[in-house]
Amino acid sequence: MFSYTLRALYRNINTCSLSGIKSRNFSRNIPWRNYGSAHLSREKETKAVTDSSKVKEIIDSYDTYLLDMDGTLWGTDHYSSIPGTPKAIEFLRKQGKEILFVTNNSFHSNSHYLNKFKSQGFEAEEDHVFGVAYAAALYLKEMLNVTGQVYVLGTHGMEDELNKFGLQHFGFGPDPDVSSLLVENLLNMEFRENVQAVLMGFDKDFHYNKIYKAASYLMDPNCHFVATNDVEIAVKIAPNRMQPTTGSLIQSVVAASKRKPTVVGKPHTLMFDCIMEKFPKTNPKRTLFVGDSLKADIRFANNVDIDSVLVLTGANTMKDLKDYPDAIPNFVMSSFAEFCIP
Amino acid sequence: MFSYTLRALYRNINTCSLSGIKSRNFSRNIPWRNYGSAHLSREKETKAVTDSSKVKEIIDSYDTYLLDMDGTLWGTDHYSSIPGTPKAIEFLRKQGKEILFVTNNSFHSNSHYLNKFKSQGFEAEEDHVFGVAYAAALYLKEMLNVTGQVYVLGTHGMEDELNKFGLQHFGFGPDPDVSSLLVENLLNMEFRENVQAVLMGFDKDFHYNKIYKAASYLMDPNCHFVATNDVEIAVKIAPNRMQPTTGSLIQSVVAASKRKPTVVGKPHTLMFDCIMEKFPKTNPKRTLFVGDSLKADIRFANNVDIDSVLVLTGANTMKDLKDYPDAIPNFVMSSFAEFCIP
Repeated sequence: MFSYTLRALYRNINTCSLSGIKSRNFSRNIPWRNYGSAHLSREKETKAVTDSSKVKEIIDSYDTYLLDMDGTLWGTDHYSSIPGTPKAIEFLRKQGKEILFVTNNSFHSNSHYLNKFKSQGFEAEEDHVFGVAYAAALYLKEMLNVTGQVYVLGTHGMEDELNKFGLQHFGFGPDPDVSSLLVENLLNMEFRENVQAVLMGFDKDFHYNKIYKAASYLMDPNCHFVATNDVEIAVKIAPNRMQPTTGSLIQSVVAASKRKPTVVGKPHTLMFDCIMEKFPKTNPKRTLFVGDSLKADIRFANNVDIDSVLVLTGANTMKDLKDYPDAIPNFVMSSFAEFCIP
Repeated sequence: MFSYTLRALYRNINTCSLSGIKSRNFSRNIPWRNYGSAHLSREKETKAVTDSSKVKEIIDSYDTYLLDMDGTLWGTDHYSSIPGTPKAIEFLRKQGKEILFVTNNSFHSNSHYLNKFKSQGFEAEEDHVFGVAYAAALYLKEMLNVTGQVYVLGTHGMEDELNKFGLQHFGFGPDPDVSSLLVENLLNMEFRENVQAVLMGFDKDFHYNKIYKAASYLMDPNCHFVATNDVEIAVKIAPNRMQPTTGSLIQSVVAASKRKPTVVGKPHTLMFDCIMEKFPKTNPKRTLFVGDSLKADIRFANNVDIDSVLVLTGANTMKDLKDYPDAIPNFVMSSFAEFCIP
């Protein structure tokens, strides 16, 4: 039972600079957002928390808990459970805490996650879930004011969210055209009018024709290019099997179109804009992010200027901390389950 | 009728440094290759050639002519002719010049190009053609000594060349497995034993499953990763249509596998190794490269230390010269057709 600082890990880092992280695009008019450069260059101490009195102190310090899902509430393989996480949610709720769920996973709609939660042993309201499929639809509809067609490379979970926002869209599933190298065949493929955005997520039907169509629509500089996430590149699902995810798929479209997408997911800040829009009374100073990924979760917390906990049940270990000098958590805990104090 | 130097274009460039170009991987044991750093940092003058007496002087200075194809012998759209190019080939041959053809196009086998030449009005021997499909097969078989399976994302032209070299391969055409996001389905997909290389070219059937399989095979550090070309990213085939090519497709596999391929095509130097292997009497000092692309052709000539002509019938114009300070041709001519002196 001890608590110690991890400053030694950062002995080569004089300032916790956030330079190198993409600047925010969407938050110019949001009054609660107030980053001072002094704050951004502060030196932060990361504390490894192994003492339940320290956990109690943390719980007392925050009212809103933003929880990552894959690797934090269950395994990164989406199958295995993490013992004690439902109990920790229950415990925090009993203390009167607001718990919101924030995921970069673009497989599913927000409503899908409610069933997933039930299967894990807890429940939530749909508007407490902030998935990238939902956030992308919100961004297209309410921030970009898209009224025309959206060409989508993604999953049916994304389709559900676009439908909820009344957005016109197409592109889900296998591409309908026969593939060809011949210019005359390429020119005869199906192209729609008034395509105002290309939206990319995790697409199991990603195909040459889709890269061609996305790159062609993106030749129009007024056509928006939005991606759900970019830091999740590939997941090792077996010792010799690597499952590519959105971050790798977007690279072919980025190359062919010579354009970079606006990215909705963590560590980019749009998700926090969505949270503040739905829960405007949230006080960022009393909000804690809990997640397993330094490059997505902890960078996100750093970018939106809230405190954070790295949990060691997923993507990263203690020794990874030195590899991400721009992703510094306030605390490291072995698991989110530690938030349940006996 | 005048000739002038283009030094003004380079007034901001003190040395013609080749830094930034990838180092050569394959030529360590080739005795004719002898780059001195003094040479690499020489200052080169580019001359715009508009005077037939200057053309005669150039012709007299070189015995071997390496000709790019798309954009040099015919249009970059692969359809339109460039007037006078067959006559120029005929004229150079009458002067006793050796003419070799060097292309990054991975659509076709070398033998295919002989028919293309005929349709354009001239002929050639198959072993005078250096296509990336041929060079990739040569590299896998004779330099990497691959004896096992090659997983190929490419065209049937590549298949033909691999067959000629007796290489075992698979992967052409649409992927046979039903696409899925589910880990259990991904793990049940077809994977072969003893895959010693992943070879990527232009693949009209490029698909999520192929990225998954390529990235999985590439988890074995002994599995080679080879690509036919990387500078050809996408081709504008209509005002609002962008055809992606190999350089964009490889980016998804590069991201998912966290590996970079060895690239066979120009501006990388392997093609010149192939030329020297087949035509060992070639004198690099009396060899001229003629091509339309600064980033592929002229950089290639610079990399292998031979002289070069930029022709203005394809990818680049005069004003592009300033954008590629590491790709400096010796001469600029309006067309390869100018090599036919009346």
